[in-house]
Amino acid sequence: MIPPRCSALLTDLYQFTMLQGYLEQDMEAVAAYEFFVRRLPRDRSYLVAAGLESVLQYLETVRFTAEEVDWLAGTGRFNRRFLDYVAGFRFAGEVAAMPEGTVFFPDEPILRVVAPIPQAQLVETRIINLLHYQTLVASKAARTVLAAEGRLLVDFGLRRAHGAEAGLLAARASYLAGFGGSSNVLAEHEYGIPGYGTMAHSFVQAHEDEALAFEHFAHAQPDNVVLLIDTYDTEAAAEKVAALAPRLMAQGIRVKAVRLDSGDLGEHARRVRRIFDAAGLEGIGIFASGNLDEYQVAELVAQKAPIGGFGVGTRMLTSSDAPYLDCAYKLMEYAGRARRKRSEGKATWPGRKQVYRFHDGAGRLLRDVLTVEGDVKEGGQPLLSPVMRAGRRLQAPLPLDEARRHCAAELARLPPSLRALEGNGTYEVEVAPALHELALAVDEGRV
Amino acid sequence: MIPPRCSALLTDLYQFTMLQGYLEQDMEAVAAYEFFVRRLPRDRSYLVAAGLESVLQYLETVRFTAEEVDWLAGTGRFNRRFLDYVAGFRFAGEVAAMPEGTVFFPDEPILRVVAPIPQAQLVETRIINLLHYQTLVASKAARTVLAAEGRLLVDFGLRRAHGAEAGLLAARASYLAGFGGSSNVLAEHEYGIPGYGTMAHSFVQAHEDEALAFEHFAHAQPDNVVLLIDTYDTEAAAEKVAALAPRLMAQGIRVKAVRLDSGDLGEHARRVRRIFDAAGLEGIGIFASGNLDEYQVAELVAQKAPIGGFGVGTRMLTSSDAPYLDCAYKLMEYAGRARRKRSEGKATWPGRKQVYRFHDGAGRLLRDVLTVEGDVKEGGQPLLSPVMRAGRRLQAPLPLDEARRHCAAELARLPPSLRALEGNGTYEVEVAPALHELALAVDEGRV
Repeated sequence: MIPPRCSALLTDLYQFTMLQGYLEQDMEAVAAYEFFVRRLPRDRSYLVAAGLESVLQYLETVRFTAEEVDWLAGTGRFNRRFLDYVAGFRFAGEVAAMPEGTVFFPDEPILRVVAPIPQAQLVETRIINLLHYQTLVASKAARTVLAAEGRLLVDFGLRRAHGAEAGLLAARASYLAGFGGSSNVLAEHEYGIPGYGTMAHSFVQAHEDEALAFEHFAHAQPDNVVLLIDTYDTEAAAEKVAALAPRLMAQGIRVKAVRLDSGDLGEHARRVRRIFDAAGLEGIGIFASGNLDEYQVAELVAQKAPIGGFGVGTRMLTSSDAPYLDCAYKLMEYAGRARRKRSEGKATWPGRKQVYRFHDGAGRLLRDVLTVEGDVKEGGQPLLSPVMRAGRRLQAPLPLDEARRHCAAELARLPPSLRALEGNGTYEVEVAPALHELALAVDEGRV
Repeated sequence: MIPPRCSALLTDLYQFTMLQGYLEQDMEAVAAYEFFVRRLPRDRSYLVAAGLESVLQYLETVRFTAEEVDWLAGTGRFNRRFLDYVAGFRFAGEVAAMPEGTVFFPDEPILRVVAPIPQAQLVETRIINLLHYQTLVASKAARTVLAAEGRLLVDFGLRRAHGAEAGLLAARASYLAGFGGSSNVLAEHEYGIPGYGTMAHSFVQAHEDEALAFEHFAHAQPDNVVLLIDTYDTEAAAEKVAALAPRLMAQGIRVKAVRLDSGDLGEHARRVRRIFDAAGLEGIGIFASGNLDEYQVAELVAQKAPIGGFGVGTRMLTSSDAPYLDCAYKLMEYAGRARRKRSEGKATWPGRKQVYRFHDGAGRLLRDVLTVEGDVKEGGQPLLSPVMRAGRRLQAPLPLDEARRHCAAELARLPPSLRALEGNGTYEVEVAPALHELALAVDEGRV
């Protein structure tokens, strides 16, 4: 299973019941849908767009197999026209989007799909599923990257990610946001993300003697000796490493680092640092893990704990302080006419939209303007651009490292007011007069 | 992609570095690992075991393809012995477990793997990944089932689940816990879970007229007419349904229900109920959705809101109030000797264990005893039993509906003290003297 290659049946049943409805009424006019986030979760001041690449891959390849069409027929819910439609289904529409790694704010569309309504509707569920999670993780990872102030960050979260695909997509989203790599081997295989890995407590426990476990591990992985020292007593284990390291060095094996995984990480790091320094082993680094997220990383950095890198897992992959985004994929236009939904607390801005971004003299984010497509805002940078036409990409996939550089540049442009880990920093997203006017026109039935 | 069929590379790199270490030292003695949860999250008084079926499927089928072995070779990290080992890798060990749907508590193993250490270690990451998420969701879903007091619950969460697999596994875990079905079509295809689906706001928006949208939908799905009425104005839409329903009835089409998806759901439900009742349409049900979880469901039930069923999505599939469990898969025995880890805050009970459950006269849960395997507790029900030997299941997979009945019986046995949605109800899990003695013996080096 490599995302997004999964069955086209991975969708909500209502996509099929609506499709049958559209087909019966010969409603096949062009629709425009946009994906956006309604509001920021607590303690988020910006979001980082991610998931576009997997959405494009999905749109290029989504098909119903003969077995799936037969199964749908067998449910008795669908008529022949519906079954013929899905059997021949190909996505042949247009997509415009913000590049992955772009910083964005509520109400700003990061992706627009334009296609005959049966097509544009049918792909809703998986598009949300892909964009929501990757954006959620990239946004949390970006906060961690800023908190780490240049220290190495490694994704350790696969085991407690919500399923296989979450583990894989999160490895990519966190790397996009500036992590140095991942423990997830499949992420290296699929995306070329640098692999990191050391040892588990069980490796130590399976040996009669902790020092012997370290020695065996060093011989098995001579180029990557990172030893886990908290299985029994952290400082006692550090002493064992201090005794072992010169012996290994004589055999040409260098102990690169130790890993701490429990207790007061800052305090242990200081004690272990003193033990190594006293033994003349200034070169052995200290790596920390254990339920870390941006808040703990920031605290350890503020303490000046002698930690060179962090393994960040569960809390990032589940985005535990904000496990979901209030996001939607909504119909904005049908048959040439703008539309909006007016449900309580969930009203949308109608029509096809564009976001223009303005920067200050230092190149920092100043304000955004949300407006209707075509209402050009001079001096502003349009954030959405066409990426797919007639179901085909307009460019080759952006290499992940390029998207990662784009994200780093975006984060460097964040003003100090948005960098705080707590609270919701304010950033102006102006709704242009043209968009206000369109909303009014829709409400009054003038369009 | 159908879980758990995914690449064997979906694992942590350290599983491979340790494997190379074990092989180099000829450490292939038998190890016992157990999966357990260290402590309950806030506002959880019990957990519901889920994921065993997918773990067994994984263990039966896990293989490295030739391409994967070549790729591992190409990383330059591994020696020939390692590569030969993974090329021929089959899981051939034993598994004991609690049946899916069983209620359990912290420190109680729900699964034990016994196999030569290279095998038992190599499968760690995916086992945790599968058991953690499904148990997390089943536990949250069970709370929702109790809160709903018999009303229909439907999983609506796929779009904001963390990836495809989370959406699929959660549909199954929530059905196991007592949900009536899922909007996820693939879950019906894979697991036979009843499918539910109505319409989205876009279907209404795409029509010039809301009443016309309702009529079109009814004709397209005459056996399942559930109309979404909050796109513009809920009560106005209810009046339209009241006018339309008799007309449809004359054509043999019954409006089954309406769906509310925004605003004060209890208040809207009461108003809509009055509109329908006044029109003599007592038979039209009201279904509610929109960021619901067990807390809102309990509140609506307490209000006696006239709602017959709930669509529960994002908050359940992300387990938003407790997005992860502090769980682990730990080495408990190696080469015939019990082991334990003593890391701060993460010490484990050593050895192969069994959980005995005692019930009161009314059949309710009274207390559990955690002890070493073989220390039989008369009158107690042992919760772990063998399910796999030599890599093969001992029984055919338990039909999902049977596991669901088992879970319902388990929930019926919960004492009132554990049923509250808030707080951590206390339940006695006694650690037997034999287990205390074993821990001491391990610490003192006597075993």
